Amino acid sequence: MSEMRLVVVGAAGRMGRALVRAVTEASGARLSAAIEREGSEFLGKDAGELAGCGELGVPVTSDALTAFAAADGVLDFTAPKASLWFAELAAQARIVHVIGTTGWAQGEDEPLQAAARHARIVKSGNMSLGVNLLAALVKKAAKALDSDFDIEVLEMHHKHKVDAPSGTALMLGEAAAKGRGISLEDHAVRSRDGITGARNTGDIGFATLRGGSVIGEHSVIFASDSERLTLSHHAEDRQLFAKGAVKAALWAFEKKPGFYSMADVLGLSD
Amino acid sequence: MSEMRLVVVGAAGRMGRALVRAVTEASGARLSAAIEREGSEFLGKDAGELAGCGELGVPVTSDALTAFAAADGVLDFTAPKASLWFAELAAQARIVHVIGTTGWAQGEDEPLQAAARHARIVKSGNMSLGVNLLAALVKKAAKALDSDFDIEVLEMHHKHKVDAPSGTALMLGEAAAKGRGISLEDHAVRSRDGITGARNTGDIGFATLRGGSVIGEHSVIFASDSERLTLSHHAEDRQLFAKGAVKAALWAFEKKPGFYSMADVLGLSD
Amino acid sequence: MSEMRLVVVGAAGRMGRALVRAVTEASGARLSAAIEREGSEFLGKDAGELAGCGELGVPVTSDALTAFAAADGVLDFTAPKASLWFAELAAQARIVHVIGTTGWAQGEDEPLQAAARHARIVKSGNMSLGVNLLAALVKKAAKALDSDFDIEVLEMHHKHKVDAPSGTALMLGEAAAKGRGISLEDHAVRSRDGITGARNTGDIGFATLRGGSVIGEHSVIFASDSERLTLSHHAEDRQLFAKGAVKAALWAFEKKPGFYSMADVLGLSD
Amino acid sequence: MSEMRLVVVGAAGRMGRALVRAVTEASGARLSAAIEREGSEFLGKDAGELAGCGELGVPVTSDALTAFAAADGVLDFTAPKASLWFAELAAQARIVHVIGTTGWAQGEDEPLQAAARHARIVKSGNMSLGVNLLAALVKKAAKALDSDFDIEVLEMHHKHKVDAPSGTALMLGEAAAKGRGISLEDHAVRSRDGITGARNTGDIGFATLRGGSVIGEHSVIFASDSERLTLSHHAEDRQLFAKGAVKAALWAFEKKPGFYSMADVLGLSD
Repeated sequence: MSEMRLVVVGAAGRMGRALVRAVTEASGARLSAAIEREGSEFLGKDAGELAGCGELGVPVTSDALTAFAAADGVLDFTAPKASLWFAELAAQARIVHVIGTTGWAQGEDEPLQAAARHARIVKSGNMSLGVNLLAALVKKAAKALDSDFDIEVLEMHHKHKVDAPSGTALMLGEAAAKGRGISLEDHAVRSRDGITGARNTGDIGFATLRGGSVIGEHSVIFASDSERLTLSHHAEDRQLFAKGAVKAALWAFEKKPGFYSMADVLGLSD
Repeated sequence: MSEMRLVVVGAAGRMGRALVRAVTEASGARLSAAIEREGSEFLGKDAGELAGCGELGVPVTSDALTAFAAADGVLDFTAPKASLWFAELAAQARIVHVIGTTGWAQGEDEPLQAAARHARIVKSGNMSLGVNLLAALVKKAAKALDSDFDIEVLEMHHKHKVDAPSGTALMLGEAAAKGRGISLEDHAVRSRDGITGARNTGDIGFATLRGGSVIGEHSVIFASDSERLTLSHHAEDRQLFAKGAVKAALWAFEKKPGFYSMADVLGLSD
Repeated sequence: MSEMRLVVVGAAGRMGRALVRAVTEASGARLSAAIEREGSEFLGKDAGELAGCGELGVPVTSDALTAFAAADGVLDFTAPKASLWFAELAAQARIVHVIGTTGWAQGEDEPLQAAARHARIVKSGNMSLGVNLLAALVKKAAKALDSDFDIEVLEMHHKHKVDAPSGTALMLGEAAAKGRGISLEDHAVRSRDGITGARNTGDIGFATLRGGSVIGEHSVIFASDSERLTLSHHAEDRQLFAKGAVKAALWAFEKKPGFYSMADVLGLSD
Repeated sequence: MSEMRLVVVGAAGRMGRALVRAVTEASGARLSAAIEREGSEFLGKDAGELAGCGELGVPVTSDALTAFAAADGVLDFTAPKASLWFAELAAQARIVHVIGTTGWAQGEDEPLQAAARHARIVKSGNMSLGVNLLAALVKKAAKALDSDFDIEVLEMHHKHKVDAPSGTALMLGEAAAKGRGISLEDHAVRSRDGITGARNTGDIGFATLRGGSVIGEHSVIFASDSERLTLSHHAEDRQLFAKGAVKAALWAFEKKPGFYSMADVLGLSD
């Protein structure tokens, strides 16, 4: 099979540059175009040099239409409105569209379903392979273990993070709740301080650590009276998300048009 | 259904006593005999008193043949050679043989397959729900992750343990190898010391800690260049394994002769 | 020296029973009385039988005054109000009072200082050698590391525990604060939930996990932008604390009245 | 004081490049030469460009003799034989020699003592503040705990590492042995496989994990029958060691000839 030709949109942004680096490092893929919005100060600059990985001979342009026509896939961590337009172009070009864009309003992503009749769309709020696999394992474990096993979710992030628990911790709590067939909202204990009383059977507890430069660590603990199962993920490199997107693109290369998730990419769907 | 009559072999050892306690606490089973080797100082003593659960009226004997003939099953955490002999006796008696024995040399357990034509054998390096669930999760993770993820198995046990890696660590390594579709034998690196050279892609590494009274801790690590997934089990109570063995015996009571695993008992097989 | 006569208060509770067992196993001490609150269903029962270590001929009573008058020391893991009253009685009787009680409100334990003019009080949030050594190491580390290192304290206990963070976690936070020369009260962040803002330099954070039968696990984390130091303790056996309390009582037997800590008992004070 | 002129040896390797970056970022130091072995494909290339920090006007050469004569110090994370030769050259030039090299055979580093009569040598298996503090804490803990506590050292590094256990793991084992007043050589168990027999009281065990991109994780475990103390370090950034090496060089600049450790540099010696 020939190399997959990938377009990075929003190529001069922080995530765009990470995607360019990830494409150049992947085997089976190469950067065919780098797109920025019209008027961007980066138009004409070499996408590889912007990304700090040496000249690639791919200047940044604003002509997505031409770029998509000569590509097999597009990597997109931009904004909802831009992603909707890119999905239309991807459908016309009948290529792969990997969407890591977040911040969608309720229902705003519905047009993607129509685009997915012609494009192969992979959309996820979290492109990390490990975290998505962890969520699937947590769900499976929660299904296999009854409420003799108390479920706790622990996370640690760097000192700059402003909210708690992390979105990923809540996603893992959701996976546990789904596996157990309960509602997370009804059973979440998001912090503990003072006289809390004994733990209620069925609770899903959260605990939050903050410090240093920790990129992201998550553990889900299943604790019974005689044994404990702990499933953990540790992010070592911010490139993680960009690499996940490239993997999703390569996976979708030979698939039929459709709307896919990272769970599909990883073969983790039920 | 009448109560299952269970023989405990190696009844005066640490695991044997735990098994006696577990049998007396289980519903649906009772201790019918307790076996120790000829010449043991414990012959003639009451198995219940040895186990610290009160007199049971079952004196320790060395006559396994008679004991098996009057039993429905045998619980065995002894040593490979003894277990092979017990399997023959169990096959003759057409009863259940639950084998928690570890430390098998390569191929040493093959005669058990023959015994399983007549006995119902349940053999596992670890009888706990959590560890067997862990093995299922490890297999699933190894299947989902390619060889960019290095697999390592870490275990810690108490200072009295005489073999390394633990049977459970090897079982987890097998689960990883199976998930990845490779042979553990070809890829296991059982210890590292000195100038080892760089890690080979596809290796499954083992590391062993010994100390204190640790009942059993196992972790399987999947490490890529940017993230790490760690799946761990922590036994908090030695009775865990004895209870699991009794559960296996009760499960196998009504099954056909065959060779079963705890994954079968717990409904975790694919 | 004659055997030290020890009273266990709260003798029918989980820790009380552990204390009774520890006293009977210690050399140099014996159980002289076992106290429960008026109206307890356990009054009149034998303390040894309750503790599962055979009849001791010591019935549970509610008459602490008489018991203290005929004793050399008292072992107390009850509740703050009860412990204050027992300290008064111990001061009157001029005996040893070992206090493992936790959950003290700010300043609530001040009357103990007055009692310590006549009683020999040993008070600690944790009676184990390991935890007290951990506290000494935490203090040393906090002294060596500047505020580039964020300090976090994580603890996990069984599902029955009713307060958070544990007394031991607070004790470790105090050790860190002392090493750094700051006040824990001014810098403690006892839980995090919702929009917390970025971490303040100098904060000492706490996080609490609850589940299963975990006896007690504590970690103190020092996290900078490039490295992390984690100092942890793991209790494997509840008798640990009861044994430590008896050890403290025996140590204080020949000491002058005063207010002591386990660091004094273990020779870990600076 | 004028800027310290530093030579990086092994300048084209992974650690060499990190050292070049660290020198350019440090105040008070500058890169005066970059050395590679004769025949290296990198001879003549600019050391700054290799290190990804822009042209520095310092081409890689193989002439260490000339480079040392015009320098104040050398940073060396190469291999034992090369480091011995560099130490001789550093002694002749009477300059600082910072040695982060690991993998020394027993006694192989003895000639360094002679070199330290003229050179100011700082040698450490690990140049980070955290690891050296960890070693100090391990020594203190080993001193406080008797041989009821089994000592184990666990380390994990990236898949490219060619030796085991790591120099840092051995350094931590040395710290434990020193604290306990025993010889590491006599008590080290560097790996376990097969029928090992029970753990000997007083042993110091090592276990090694390899995988992914792990920069360096070390734990020292003290395990008794009822509790466990674990002291761990986690490196999050490879520059940590390079920065520590530059710090060591600057510290030694004004010192007398001698053989120093990072504990000396960081003021952690007793």
